[in-house]
Amino acid sequence: MISEAAPVSLADLQAGLGDELEQVRAHIRRLLEADFGLIAQVNSHLLRMQGKMFRATLLLLVNRAVQAGDDRAVRLSAIVELVHLATLVHDDSVDHSVLRRGMPTINSVFSHQVSVIIGDYLYSRAMMELVALGDLAPLEIVGRVTNEMTIGEMRQLLAHDPLTFSEESYDLLIRAKTASLISGACECGALRASPEVRSAMARFGNALGMAFQIIDDLLDFTEVEAVTGKPSGLDLREHKVTLPLIHALPRFTAAQRADVNGLMASPEPSPGQIALVVGHVRTVGGLESAKARARDWGEAALAELDQLPAGAERDLLRASIAFVTERRK
Amino acid sequence: MISEAAPVSLADLQAGLGDELEQVRAHIRRLLEADFGLIAQVNSHLLRMQGKMFRATLLLLVNRAVQAGDDRAVRLSAIVELVHLATLVHDDSVDHSVLRRGMPTINSVFSHQVSVIIGDYLYSRAMMELVALGDLAPLEIVGRVTNEMTIGEMRQLLAHDPLTFSEESYDLLIRAKTASLISGACECGALRASPEVRSAMARFGNALGMAFQIIDDLLDFTEVEAVTGKPSGLDLREHKVTLPLIHALPRFTAAQRADVNGLMASPEPSPGQIALVVGHVRTVGGLESAKARARDWGEAALAELDQLPAGAERDLLRASIAFVTERRK
Repeated sequence: MISEAAPVSLADLQAGLGDELEQVRAHIRRLLEADFGLIAQVNSHLLRMQGKMFRATLLLLVNRAVQAGDDRAVRLSAIVELVHLATLVHDDSVDHSVLRRGMPTINSVFSHQVSVIIGDYLYSRAMMELVALGDLAPLEIVGRVTNEMTIGEMRQLLAHDPLTFSEESYDLLIRAKTASLISGACECGALRASPEVRSAMARFGNALGMAFQIIDDLLDFTEVEAVTGKPSGLDLREHKVTLPLIHALPRFTAAQRADVNGLMASPEPSPGQIALVVGHVRTVGGLESAKARARDWGEAALAELDQLPAGAERDLLRASIAFVTERRK
Repeated sequence: MISEAAPVSLADLQAGLGDELEQVRAHIRRLLEADFGLIAQVNSHLLRMQGKMFRATLLLLVNRAVQAGDDRAVRLSAIVELVHLATLVHDDSVDHSVLRRGMPTINSVFSHQVSVIIGDYLYSRAMMELVALGDLAPLEIVGRVTNEMTIGEMRQLLAHDPLTFSEESYDLLIRAKTASLISGACECGALRASPEVRSAMARFGNALGMAFQIIDDLLDFTEVEAVTGKPSGLDLREHKVTLPLIHALPRFTAAQRADVNGLMASPEPSPGQIALVVGHVRTVGGLESAKARARDWGEAALAELDQLPAGAERDLLRASIAFVTERRK
């Protein structure tokens, strides 16, 4: 069982990493140095909207925990964050999102065109840096994972019909869209470990990533803009079907289901319509049920840690599970 | 000097390649096999709009001409065509183009979203296939070239002001946007050759690619939709400044220049406005002057062929220069 004692923050996980995360940030800055004006402008905006480095944190923690020191960990972390950034930029462009982490998106500040191009720029820059490492192993991981993510994005386009979008489809979607890169990050942290440990870390990252996305989707139901940096109920407003709704649907009364159908039929659902459906989902236990599913994935992640030597580093990976499953934003 | 005798067709260049091009097509089909419905649908549309395989043709011809047989040539050709396809899909999406090679574009048949995602899918698929070849050399080339292409796309966004867009900017743009991948294709055909020959083939491809894009831009002024499969004068309609206009500008009368300014100031230039400016560019010799520039690049390409052993294969590469500089579509 995962302890539910004190809540774990990302800062707790990152506290032990010393200046490695700062090195990752510096390396990303170096990789994004561009002598072409417009690219430099966009990159400087990207650097300001840089995220919490969750994937880099995991890669660095895994690298320590497997105790098979890999001096490429900082560069690999920068690459993984670059790929993550590329997918966010294309994702926002595909979704026409206006805000990301409380900051205006590239497509809203610059243009849709710039978003498409800069995403490609970031991907190819990551690929060049992987080539510079001179090892096919991380190239294999990142190539496979980025391909999976595009399939996830494609699945996302079809995740708008509550009658046909099953929990199985949802699992396939979030595995491809989110868990794949988190799994890849953890696997990249274990490149110098034994094949067994490397596989265990890939599975750990996959399970953690599944939990991460389920909680992300859950928070869209429960949190307000000020906390998550993006408007609440956004998924419902965009007719995106996620786990809480999938779990709630079979438990709805005919009247509740009619409200869902009404929202899905509205091109622009009103805040009232969204609040109504959020309420229904909460009432029939859709939120609790999704949370339980996230905790199951947390347990699956925990089991993989048995492959690692006991110690403070393994404890931090254990804490990362609590962080993911219990986070509030 | 390049002979101007009989015009060379792409079919002439491809005639000697036997079934290798068919193998490339079959390999692309294999790489695009997808078990996810929407991706399979889009891919099947992509396969129907597949182009003339000019880059694959060059790679295969170079591979024969350098006489250092590389049994990866078919797979490398498929990868290069896949990257090319990816850039076309994103390019059409960025430009909101409706037609490509006489067929509706992905963004017009499916959606802008699908275009962004499928472009990423194609890139990452190409990367996976490169990794499967187990050699960092082509990964280095393709990574570098795709990054250059994104910089070219970014430059393209700024190529709309005839007063500031110089011939030097134009050269940088087309080098990044077009010549880089053609250069990369030729270099990939010479991976088993000596470093000197490999570099010569990269330079050959660069020069050929410069000529190719200049002629492409020229044809936009001279050809009608039925021949090129895309509407004529499209660049001017979209306010894209290309070499014929750059060459013509200093030779314009004040009245002619006023017509150009009028076109550039119209959000949607009329066919009459476009025809007027095309006429002015022709009158002051802008088309001839751009054609001469393409031939200069053809001469530069020709010089690189001195590095190759004489023979039928080298003659075909020579013919490819005539094809590029004299083509009518």
